[in-house]
Amino acid sequence: MPRYCITIEYDGTPFVGWQVQADGETVQGSLVRAIEAFCGVAVQVRGAGRTDAGVHARGQVAHFDLSRDWDPFRVAEAVNFHLRPSPIAVIGCRVVPDAFDARFSAIRRHYLYRILPRRAPAVLEANRVWRVSQALDHTAMDEAAQVLVGQHDFTTFRAAGCQAKSPIKTLDRLAVIARDGEIHVAATARSFLHNQVRSMVGCLKAVGEGKWTCSDLIAARDACDRSACAAVAPAAGLYLTQVDYPDAATERVT
Amino acid sequence: MPRYCITIEYDGTPFVGWQVQADGETVQGSLVRAIEAFCGVAVQVRGAGRTDAGVHARGQVAHFDLSRDWDPFRVAEAVNFHLRPSPIAVIGCRVVPDAFDARFSAIRRHYLYRILPRRAPAVLEANRVWRVSQALDHTAMDEAAQVLVGQHDFTTFRAAGCQAKSPIKTLDRLAVIARDGEIHVAATARSFLHNQVRSMVGCLKAVGEGKWTCSDLIAARDACDRSACAAVAPAAGLYLTQVDYPDAATERVT
Repeated sequence: MPRYCITIEYDGTPFVGWQVQADGETVQGSLVRAIEAFCGVAVQVRGAGRTDAGVHARGQVAHFDLSRDWDPFRVAEAVNFHLRPSPIAVIGCRVVPDAFDARFSAIRRHYLYRILPRRAPAVLEANRVWRVSQALDHTAMDEAAQVLVGQHDFTTFRAAGCQAKSPIKTLDRLAVIARDGEIHVAATARSFLHNQVRSMVGCLKAVGEGKWTCSDLIAARDACDRSACAAVAPAAGLYLTQVDYPDAATERVT
Repeated sequence: MPRYCITIEYDGTPFVGWQVQADGETVQGSLVRAIEAFCGVAVQVRGAGRTDAGVHARGQVAHFDLSRDWDPFRVAEAVNFHLRPSPIAVIGCRVVPDAFDARFSAIRRHYLYRILPRRAPAVLEANRVWRVSQALDHTAMDEAAQVLVGQHDFTTFRAAGCQAKSPIKTLDRLAVIARDGEIHVAATARSFLHNQVRSMVGCLKAVGEGKWTCSDLIAARDACDRSACAAVAPAAGLYLTQVDYPDAATERVT
């Protein structure tokens, strides 16, 4: 039973999220169907991050076991064939050790959030960015972002339904960068609470508009109270861009 | 009758092109309807470049006359309101001298062509790039591109139906750049022949794959024969990014 690790890109717009649910199309469900159509037997697919409805991925990672030794290139080609016309693509595929787990072996997750600050609606980037009418001070946003880096109780930035055991997380990086007329927020951590990136971006937008100061963000963080959070940023601007693993987890001993 | 100059972004996918035609939705037609819905009288809208079906714009320019002096900000807001849900957005609006003509006053047009070289289908960038299965040597493409820069007879790179009086054009810039896993071809000239950018990109792709050498591209250019052109690149990867005007054409004497 060789274990395969795939890297996946998807447009989250038509999905109710990553995880299989009672109702609605999911990314996980679409992958399971495509893999089963190719190999003819039931498979389980496990992802590194359970992205919400409308959230995109450029580098989601998942694993599954096949009953025989297929060439990884053939697996990727066949799964992509059966995924059509769903907006999901396998962009990488390799055989990994049996102990590899896309979720539990991950040591870092990277997210990108794209904001388009302009009056006109987003058309070329519809469903790909958060279009905000106000000009935003990205330098002030980046300065403020640094108060969230490090180990904190992120209760303020955590969705009501979050199932994590602890609200204490270590944020490795939170950077706000101006690029091609957009504002990009890049976030890196071992793991995130449910809605944490979108909650942090919502607060940073308040800073960028001049509604919040850096002190307001510190106060919101220290309140450890969901009601201290600014309006949560919409799903469409968020991308799971990369998941990191230790070399030992992915290198197959042959 | 003040004259307004607007800068427009659009997703070309659902349109049969810029120019109003007997059948099918056009960008020009959608703009005319939106402006008329706002001002209540008939208008004519003239664009700088007549983009083909499926070709996008980040910086198309057009002009029209209104019967009274509206604030340009209000004009942009109102036209954007009436354009919905068409994927067209007015991203800039100003009053210009009566002699301004979006097409004839233009001194330079800039196009971008995006190629995504990978096996997996384009999903996040579906209808936004040309996905090619082969790896492409962008350095070889950029070197070869330079043989098209300057004044040449571009008959090889001209669509059969092209209405330009002469096939002789001066190409100011043709640069091939690797960016974020894509290959971008940037082209600048006072004006282009019909399908010229897509024809040149089709030939550069042949160079990138190693099917054509630089000498093959020179031979194709010098043949001045449409049948010497490689397969024309598809519309979806092409963007009209910017149109330049002399300051005197757009500065209003008040």
